[in-house]
Order: sequence, then structure tokens, then C-alpha cells
Amino acid sequence: MKFYDCTTAPSPRRVRIFLAEKGLILPTAQVDLRNGEQFTPAFRAINPDCTVPVLELDDGTLIADAVAICGYLEELHPEPPLIGASLQERAVVTAVNRMIERDGFHAAMDAFRNFTRGFKGRALPGRHDYEQIPELAARGRSRVEHFFRDMDARLASREFVAGERFTIADISTLVLTDFAGWVKLAIPEDCAHLRRWYGAVSARPSAKA
Amino acid sequence: MKFYDCTTAPSPRRVRIFLAEKGLILPTAQVDLRNGEQFTPAFRAINPDCTVPVLELDDGTLIADAVAICGYLEELHPEPPLIGASLQERAVVTAVNRMIERDGFHAAMDAFRNFTRGFKGRALPGRHDYEQIPELAARGRSRVEHFFRDMDARLASREFVAGERFTIADISTLVLTDFAGWVKLAIPEDCAHLRRWYGAVSARPSAKA
Repeated sequence: MKFYDCTTAPSPRRVRIFLAEKGLILPTAQVDLRNGEQFTPAFRAINPDCTVPVLELDDGTLIADAVAICGYLEELHPEPPLIGASLQERAVVTAVNRMIERDGFHAAMDAFRNFTRGFKGRALPGRHDYEQIPELAARGRSRVEHFFRDMDARLASREFVAGERFTIADISTLVLTDFAGWVKLAIPEDCAHLRRWYGAVSARPSAKA
Repeated sequence: MKFYDCTTAPSPRRVRIFLAEKGLILPTAQVDLRNGEQFTPAFRAINPDCTVPVLELDDGTLIADAVAICGYLEELHPEPPLIGASLQERAVVTAVNRMIERDGFHAAMDAFRNFTRGFKGRALPGRHDYEQIPELAARGRSRVEHFFRDMDARLASREFVAGERFTIADISTLVLTDFAGWVKLAIPEDCAHLRRWYGAVSARPSAKA
């Protein structure tokens, strides 16, 4: 196996934290996103979408998606369970993780990529170029603010975002919260439950990944 | 189990086709989205996001996401495999399905919800209201056009979108292609591979679901 990573980027950080929680270390190649290595012919041959993370299996199969990579690693190394220990828990964790991606991660990405000068003409990752839409940056900020309040309410009655166990849904929320900080979006002062959770998950050794 | 459905909506159609391919029939409740039943207190208690599909398990657990529901049903009823028959195939199908959601499904949703008069003030599903952004409708149309051409290239060397087997990734692509027709986006005439695929999957009995 070979893991294509970029230590400064949020999406591969989801996989790095997942690996750290599992106690796994993979052979890793750094892709220099800041200097455009993802757009080189060599990297396009690995992932035409020009994104990391990518996991290359020993037979050459390429898995170019953070959640698909985590699902693969969970099946290979079930302990500790990070996507649910039962059929039912897996369904709940999957649904919650997808809600977090949609309402939080994509919103933070809209806020960042439609605003940041360096992403002019590249408002979306992937193989095609799209111009920034300033209204979409503003909507993204508003959505992240709503997301923080909704998560605060959710954490009033749960230790972790998908229940009583640390899961991939906590990883997604931690990574997007730190990423939202790039455009100066922070957990509101009065969101005590979300702040309690953020302190706890940030203190785990895996959060350094 | 109880399946909350709406026969006119694309997201629950993904689950309906999945059920039909498995040969499963579930007790089903129709939610009348056109007349706002999703915004009633009774339905908000089932799904605060005000969306279908939702699967209610016998112990009361609620799974409010099409892909999480399909994953649950696949584990309960593995045959025929629709999310991959091996660890590796599951990872590939998951990654391809997520690419199709991001580049196709979300793009078609942007094109539809930011343009259609009935969705004024409701440009996103979920618990919060957002205004339409006309530039986002236009970007959505452009993305769907790119998506059709990218899928045509993909299908030049594969019978189905994730390989040689019909999977959830074909279901997602079929549903979004029909949904894109609501805003008059159609597979271009010269996309022969995608047209061949569309003819074949549309002719399956499950496509009527």
C-alpha cells in the first residue's frame, strides 16, 4: 500500500487521524499541493481529479476518496471500531458522517475556496476549473455558523457526535472545525457542549496527525 | 422496518431502485413533499432535516440518508452485491459513488434548486433556509455537462460505471440523469458510451421504481 498525502491539507488529515487512532503507519508520499504537484502529468495519472488523499493498493488499484479509504482500512483492521461496531451503528455513523460532510465540510470549503485569492479560477477541486462566486463564500460562512450551533445542540446529549464512541464522524468534525479557522470561523463562545467536545478530541494524540 | 418515501423525489428513488434490485419490499409511508408534509412537527420529529428517505428500524433507530440506508440493507441482504463483493471492490464502488454524488448529483441539485421558482428561499435541503444564487444554478448546469462527458469517457472501457457489475454507482448516475432532465439537461447526442449505458440501465425493471 502507498498513501498519497499532503500534510497541510484537510482532506488527507481525515485519513491521517484515522490511521493514528488505529495505530497504523503506511508508506507515504507527500504531494506538494502548494506548488501545484497535483496538476503534473505524473500525479494526474494517479488521480485525474488532482486531489489527495489517494490510497494505492499492492495490485495497483487506486482509491481516491478519504471516506472510501477509511472504510477499506476499517475492514482490514476492525479494532478499534471507528465506523461502528454493529450493523446498526455503522448505518448511524455513516448517516451522521455524511450530514457533517454536507452541512459542515462542504460549507467550509465553499467559504474558503470562493474567497481565497489563491483559488481564483479554482473554486472547486476536480478536473475542471470554475470561477469563484462571492455569494457562495458568504453562504458557506452562514452555513458553518448554523452547523456549529446544530452540533452544539447534538452534543448536549452525547459524548461524541455519533453517540458514546469516538468515530469517523468526530474526525470529520474536528478537521472541518480547524479548516474553518483558515477563514476565521470559530466555535461561538456560548456553544459550551461543542467546546467541551472540541477540547476533548483535540487533546487525543491522533489530533496531531 | 419502515421506509419513508416520496415517489416523485430523486433521493428516495435511489433507495427504491436498490430495493427493487434486491427483490425487497418494505412497509412504506409516503411523505407528501409537494404539499410541505416534511415541515410538519410530526415529520420533523422523524427527521429534523425535513428530507426523505428515512429508514426507521424496529427499535426506533432512524437512518436519514440514502447511502447509509443502502449500506444497511446490503449488509442484511448481501445478494446480489450492489456495493461490491470484496473489500477492494467495496472501496472502489464507494469512491466512485461519492465522485458521482459530488460531481453529478450535487451539481444537478444546484442547477435545479437555485433556479426553480418553488424553491425560492429553500435553495438547500435541511433545517435552515437559504436564498437562491443564480450563478450557482449556472455553475451547476456547466458541471452537469462536464459530468456527462467525463462519464462518457469512463464508460468507453467499462460496462457499468464502477466496473463490470451493476452497482449503487449506476443507481446514483441513473437517478441524477433523470433528475437533470427536470431542468432540461440531457446526455449530449455524441456521448455514445453514456447513451448505451443509459439505455441498458433504464431498461432494467428496477428503473421503474
